[in-house]
Amino acid sequence: MIPIISIVGKSDSGKTTLLEKLLPELTRRGHRIATVKHDIHGFEVDREGKDSWRHKRAGAHTVVISSPQKAALIRDVEKDLTLEEIREKLIRDVDLILSEGYKKDVQPKIEIFRKEKHKELLCTKEDNLIAIVSDRTFDMGVPCFDLDDINGLGDFIEKEFLSKKGSDAILRVDGKNIPMTPFVKDFVVNTIRGMLSSLKGCHDPKRIEIRIEGED
Amino acid sequence: MIPIISIVGKSDSGKTTLLEKLLPELTRRGHRIATVKHDIHGFEVDREGKDSWRHKRAGAHTVVISSPQKAALIRDVEKDLTLEEIREKLIRDVDLILSEGYKKDVQPKIEIFRKEKHKELLCTKEDNLIAIVSDRTFDMGVPCFDLDDINGLGDFIEKEFLSKKGSDAILRVDGKNIPMTPFVKDFVVNTIRGMLSSLKGCHDPKRIEIRIEGED
Repeated sequence: MIPIISIVGKSDSGKTTLLEKLLPELTRRGHRIATVKHDIHGFEVDREGKDSWRHKRAGAHTVVISSPQKAALIRDVEKDLTLEEIREKLIRDVDLILSEGYKKDVQPKIEIFRKEKHKELLCTKEDNLIAIVSDRTFDMGVPCFDLDDINGLGDFIEKEFLSKKGSDAILRVDGKNIPMTPFVKDFVVNTIRGMLSSLKGCHDPKRIEIRIEGED
Repeated sequence: MIPIISIVGKSDSGKTTLLEKLLPELTRRGHRIATVKHDIHGFEVDREGKDSWRHKRAGAHTVVISSPQKAALIRDVEKDLTLEEIREKLIRDVDLILSEGYKKDVQPKIEIFRKEKHKELLCTKEDNLIAIVSDRTFDMGVPCFDLDDINGLGDFIEKEFLSKKGSDAILRVDGKNIPMTPFVKDFVVNTIRGMLSSLKGCHDPKRIEIRIEGED
């Protein structure tokens, strides 16, 4: 499953600027990163009069524009998506998701704090705070990186989130995540690995995706 | 698996206009539709200076903007995606995908033809032509709908693509589709259905998705 980290901080603390330094650092190390930004005011990414804009206006739920270098998508949602839902519904082919903001989400958080701007941290450890980036130090039981120590922050993220982890499995039935105990997860993973092991193209797989549609 | 139909036709035949009539018709019938448009010239869906634009410029592979009503995504691709790849990588939560164009793709096609604009059809039956929308009739062995018969075209699409079908399964290993014979597909589907049948929340599932990550 693609790991998620939220870059949080009070207003004007420099979240976007930190991401602008962190993204090239992680990309240089060979990782593909997705970013997520919440925009409560709504937004207009497509231009009036374009064919895709006409499709959307005519009632399309989702519109995709595809080119040889990039692809874009605009879709309706029924409510604000959590980062987990964004990962599930929208993001493929990356190694890490970094959100800007999303303080209220449950994902691990790195807070940026600049002492001339604010007096107190936004997060506590109860908010799943895992690191602080600041021009002062804090005794919060989490690593603290200097504002310019992008290399140190990159090392930390790589070690904690981008090194190889054991097997994990998610199961969704009719669009809902079905929780599995470790025992059931092992059983499901081993059964599927065993069943597929003699199939051509399935030798020593790192990622298996199966989708079944239709009724019994 | 979400069905795909391409609306094709020569230049200036009225593809976007047909989609502008067909989308409300299918939406009115309760279906959620995604559209896909190819843009060989590239495009700019995000605006200079916005945070998400800064993320992309700093090297993000994928950028997501999320709001309570809609979500948008821009991502890098290594080559022009086929409609099947677009379905796999980008599209969720819809009942049907309609592309505008994509004549060279393998998906079923509906051609729009207007006699005052062109002399010959773009497609043959070898192009997987399944219907024609035109102000004249053709003897091509496929249904022919009048330009204004959006209701008839909606009935045809609903009957052929949106009614309940039997089970289907897709298997992807390390990002590649693994073809399965009908026997193997049945075996995989029945094993997984059986294994999950006693799990809470898995009674009579219509759609099962499993993702396994990590090595053995």
